Amino acid sequence: MKPVPDLAFAHAHMDSLLERIPLTQTMQIALRDYDGETLALAAPLAPNVNDKGCAFGGSLASVATLAGWGLVALKLKALQIDCEIYVQDSTIRYLAPVWGEIVARAALAEGESWDEFLAVLATRGRGRLRVECRVPLEDGKDACTLDARFVAIRSAA
Amino acid sequence: MKPVPDLAFAHAHMDSLLERIPLTQTMQIALRDYDGETLALAAPLAPNVNDKGCAFGGSLASVATLAGWGLVALKLKALQIDCEIYVQDSTIRYLAPVWGEIVARAALAEGESWDEFLAVLATRGRGRLRVECRVPLEDGKDACTLDARFVAIRSAA
Repeated sequence: MKPVPDLAFAHAHMDSLLERIPLTQTMQIALRDYDGETLALAAPLAPNVNDKGCAFGGSLASVATLAGWGLVALKLKALQIDCEIYVQDSTIRYLAPVWGEIVARAALAEGESWDEFLAVLATRGRGRLRVECRVPLEDGKDACTLDARFVAIRSAA
Repeated sequence: MKPVPDLAFAHAHMDSLLERIPLTQTMQIALRDYDGETLALAAPLAPNVNDKGCAFGGSLASVATLAGWGLVALKLKALQIDCEIYVQDSTIRYLAPVWGEIVARAALAEGESWDEFLAVLATRGRGRLRVECRVPLEDGKDACTLDARFVAIRSAA
């Protein structure tokens, strides 16, 4: 693991994306951590608060989905494979309210493998991948989980 | 059906909620239509645009989830049943990009019934309900669908 260069690499590619979407700026979503296998994005509570004073569900879904999207995007970017990446579908479970900062951590879902995904992408020009995202609470439990499928389509050379 | 009074009733209860969540104001989410069985919310593209120029997935999820939440909230409000309403989980499918206004229409999911839900809520103090939301395109196809479960818990008298 090379956490320092990986984090700098992630900043180089994620920061400009986050700046290009007006709502991610309003939500103040920022890169928190990246080690090549897990990507964490964070957002403060204040701009993401709902009428009850805890985090708005739409913000939780946005931060978690973007973390999953970024995980796939950074892996392909590191391998210099040009792709369009789309979220196809996702299931989110709201388990507990978030009363502070939102942090979403994305990693490959159980049973998924980068190698298999990359092999399919190489042969068919498109690949599909399941990513799991968690928004942990301070006590280690999850405030919310998101299971999302992403599709990568190779750009025409 | 009494579309005119129902719409006024919906405005009276939804507008203040939407005003109390900063992000729904940024997204400019507004009530579009209500007839007692279907609730439509809408939001313009400009504040909800992503880096590709179409609607940001987080906005689609937010508008659709709030439409579902509002459908349950308005029914209970009309019956003067005081409840806290939470979204428990949801599955969203992104089928096509939205290049214009976002409109999300929420209605009870197939097989669900208000009568059954209200009977369980009356006996157990809590009830669960599945709602289907669609974001239609101009050609009548869906840009996105959201299937969400809501829980209503009766407030202590």
